[in-house]
Amino acid sequence: MNPITPTQQRELVCSTALFTDLYQLTMMQGYWLEGMHTQPATFDLYYRKQPFQGGFAVWAGLEPALDYLESLRFSAQDLEYLASLNLFRADFLEALRDWNFGGTVTAFREGRIVFPHVPLLSVTAPLWEAQLVETALLNSLNFQTLVATKAARCVIAAQGSPYGGQVVEFGARRAQGPNGALSASRASFVGGATGTSNVEAGLRYGLPLSGTHAHAWVQSFGSELEAFRAYARTYPDDAVLLLDTVDTLQSGLVNAITVAHELREQGHELRGVRLDSGDLAYLSRRVRAGLDEAGFPDVKIVASNDLDEQVIASVIAEGGRIDVYGIGTQLATAGGNGGGALGGVYKLAALNGQPKMKLTGDPIKSNVPGDKRVWRGRDADGLLAYDVLTLGEAPQTGERVSDPTNPLRASRLPELTWEDAREVVMRGGQRTFPADNLTTIQARALAELGQLQEGSLRLLNPHGYKVSLTQDVAELRDHTSEEIRADKVGV
Amino acid sequence: MNPITPTQQRELVCSTALFTDLYQLTMMQGYWLEGMHTQPATFDLYYRKQPFQGGFAVWAGLEPALDYLESLRFSAQDLEYLASLNLFRADFLEALRDWNFGGTVTAFREGRIVFPHVPLLSVTAPLWEAQLVETALLNSLNFQTLVATKAARCVIAAQGSPYGGQVVEFGARRAQGPNGALSASRASFVGGATGTSNVEAGLRYGLPLSGTHAHAWVQSFGSELEAFRAYARTYPDDAVLLLDTVDTLQSGLVNAITVAHELREQGHELRGVRLDSGDLAYLSRRVRAGLDEAGFPDVKIVASNDLDEQVIASVIAEGGRIDVYGIGTQLATAGGNGGGALGGVYKLAALNGQPKMKLTGDPIKSNVPGDKRVWRGRDADGLLAYDVLTLGEAPQTGERVSDPTNPLRASRLPELTWEDAREVVMRGGQRTFPADNLTTIQARALAELGQLQEGSLRLLNPHGYKVSLTQDVAELRDHTSEEIRADKVGV
Repeated sequence: MNPITPTQQRELVCSTALFTDLYQLTMMQGYWLEGMHTQPATFDLYYRKQPFQGGFAVWAGLEPALDYLESLRFSAQDLEYLASLNLFRADFLEALRDWNFGGTVTAFREGRIVFPHVPLLSVTAPLWEAQLVETALLNSLNFQTLVATKAARCVIAAQGSPYGGQVVEFGARRAQGPNGALSASRASFVGGATGTSNVEAGLRYGLPLSGTHAHAWVQSFGSELEAFRAYARTYPDDAVLLLDTVDTLQSGLVNAITVAHELREQGHELRGVRLDSGDLAYLSRRVRAGLDEAGFPDVKIVASNDLDEQVIASVIAEGGRIDVYGIGTQLATAGGNGGGALGGVYKLAALNGQPKMKLTGDPIKSNVPGDKRVWRGRDADGLLAYDVLTLGEAPQTGERVSDPTNPLRASRLPELTWEDAREVVMRGGQRTFPADNLTTIQARALAELGQLQEGSLRLLNPHGYKVSLTQDVAELRDHTSEEIRADKVGV
Repeated sequence: MNPITPTQQRELVCSTALFTDLYQLTMMQGYWLEGMHTQPATFDLYYRKQPFQGGFAVWAGLEPALDYLESLRFSAQDLEYLASLNLFRADFLEALRDWNFGGTVTAFREGRIVFPHVPLLSVTAPLWEAQLVETALLNSLNFQTLVATKAARCVIAAQGSPYGGQVVEFGARRAQGPNGALSASRASFVGGATGTSNVEAGLRYGLPLSGTHAHAWVQSFGSELEAFRAYARTYPDDAVLLLDTVDTLQSGLVNAITVAHELREQGHELRGVRLDSGDLAYLSRRVRAGLDEAGFPDVKIVASNDLDEQVIASVIAEGGRIDVYGIGTQLATAGGNGGGALGGVYKLAALNGQPKMKLTGDPIKSNVPGDKRVWRGRDADGLLAYDVLTLGEAPQTGERVSDPTNPLRASRLPELTWEDAREVVMRGGQRTFPADNLTTIQARALAELGQLQEGSLRLLNPHGYKVSLTQDVAELRDHTSEEIRADKVGV
């Protein structure tokens, strides 16, 4: 794999200031008119529930989010359009002309394993800068984290086979818009997929490409055998033949073996076959046996047809012999239990040094106020044990901590090795590091997945991970909440 | 609403030839090497199951798909990238340099109501042209049809209120990538939404924009009342105040009424309030009553918080008094029963005048071969009754037709008025009509939704719509299928 250099990358759509909700702009003007726009604000980005009822999430979409922040400007066309809405004053729009994002971003590096209620990314910037970027940050991080997590789950399921198993992303046709497809290809790779069928994603992100042929190829010839021969002629070293246009076992397998022999006589080897319908566990066993008996133990079996982690696990449990899982719809749209969207939010936690929170009618929707640090504790085996939110220094062994959603669930910290889990990834609107390439990001994800406690990778009802607040954070929350209620009673 | 003119529109991402699956390109090269690439082919695009277990779908994404076909070219960068893959011959890549799409497209106009197993769009073009475009066509039409259908379902639910009700799309932060968000804004409008919060979508598609303010606005001030006053100062005629930062009834409503009085004294009227948490049916009744008693019966109530058509229906059934539903996640990702993705497919139906089909292991995945026409029958009241696939002329009263998935389910056609439901929308790679604007498309959708039989709009277990094949189509399918099996036996 050769990741392309950033200068070869194509401009991403919507790296424009208007890719935002209208209310961000109306609030910006309001802050500006009130003279509050330059007050230093801190917003926390976090989510509240692990997707797919699983035990982890793979943090993805950070680098594109930083690209967005670095390039954020209002163009003349943007300002002309905003003027046409009759909502904005000319002097405010003039102030936007030289506007850019100059804030500080503290975040988990992309690819890390993350958990609910932990601030994954915090923006500290003048209020109007921090406010505008909410929509685009959430768009990039919510969706890519969701898809990377789904990909990791599929990879974990595929690796459950004693014969190994790879995941490639085939989702462009069912993805949610063109950029939905490209983002999905990128995020799938972060989560451990080994490639994509999407050629544009190959170019943009340097991803390995993968593909076979379609039913239309077979239908276009006089017979399936003729079609297979023609494909093998064209790609003597790369042919993967689709077996189910007529009948997988009675026609496809027989013809594929014929072509595999013919290729071998010419000094080539058939690369693989693809199954796209029927009982994949049964058919893959039969096809594997047929290929092995015919002398082709190295021909790979690729499967597609509405796969997800549950289908993969079930195929493997029944002795299926699939080498490569081509996953389309379920990966590109990240469907399934609690899938479809990651409910990440972006909440004001501090302004002018004062802690800020919202109460709302749903207690789980209250945020944790204040400028916090996230400490990740590992046990003696190096396995992840705790994420603890503090107001500064690392937590101490024996220190009392509590659950962010339920103060009654308290515990004392065991002896752990603590890491300040987030880094300042942007300062003054500029990255503090060169952008991570996708190979590095994927390696980071796979390494930290390997550091989870036993049972954390389980697809359903996994081992729960502990996220906690130190006492001073919990007290700050109680205190802030009381102050807000006091104000309310005073109204 | 003033739709912007096409020249003001921004270039859409991925209107490039590489937004396709790798296998389309490898098959193109194969057809080219075999000398088959110019054979005239017809592919049908259709889906097999109504989304959301509903009774209809709103056909959307056609105009962007036609934009894609018209602008499709391989750039020098594209060809350079393909060359780097070591899969393609230099002479083939040279042949792509002047390649464009010159085919004919026959389709339902965008916004029409559509049903499973009906070819919604057919491409007739030289085989290699028709093959390449599969991925991008499916991407545009699958996702936008899904979202437009979801929007229509939400609009139908909202209109179930005796007080009316509008739907606006608020989904950018949870959408599947930036273009997923923009496509969702566009498709939501096609399905009947009245606007979006996404400013970029407003510019690109000329959509009306909508927005309120966030919790952060309230948190940024010393008190909720101060925050409301500041927002009303900034937008005296457009202020929609978010009530739940502290407590919806005890704080938000009280402060909003205070500000509404202050605005009125200055000659303005509060535009609305927004609920974003808690029991929306209960809170909206209480807020409505509070506003009415205080003399503000025209202040609108906007609601958000993970809404979908089922939540809307339930709020209305319990007497909720919501005027505007702001729908985010569920609209932008089209979640829910059978949602997330529309399984549209694109299958070779004819090549060189010969009917083509695939059999596969799943009978429902077989296509209907041949060049077909789609006739839509309306009853004496003008209501939709039947879509019938024929090989040419309109079907006749009393003619025997059968279900495309079950030949045993046969019936005789009643007396209906038949319309040739699809039009040639592109010939020689050029549109035959000026592009429809979104106002026209939305009006077409709402008009045809009004022509469905009673019960067809029901959200669950709706009245089923009849899609049928004439006898000659069914016989062609049987005959083609037998020929393929005979070839298989002959192998």
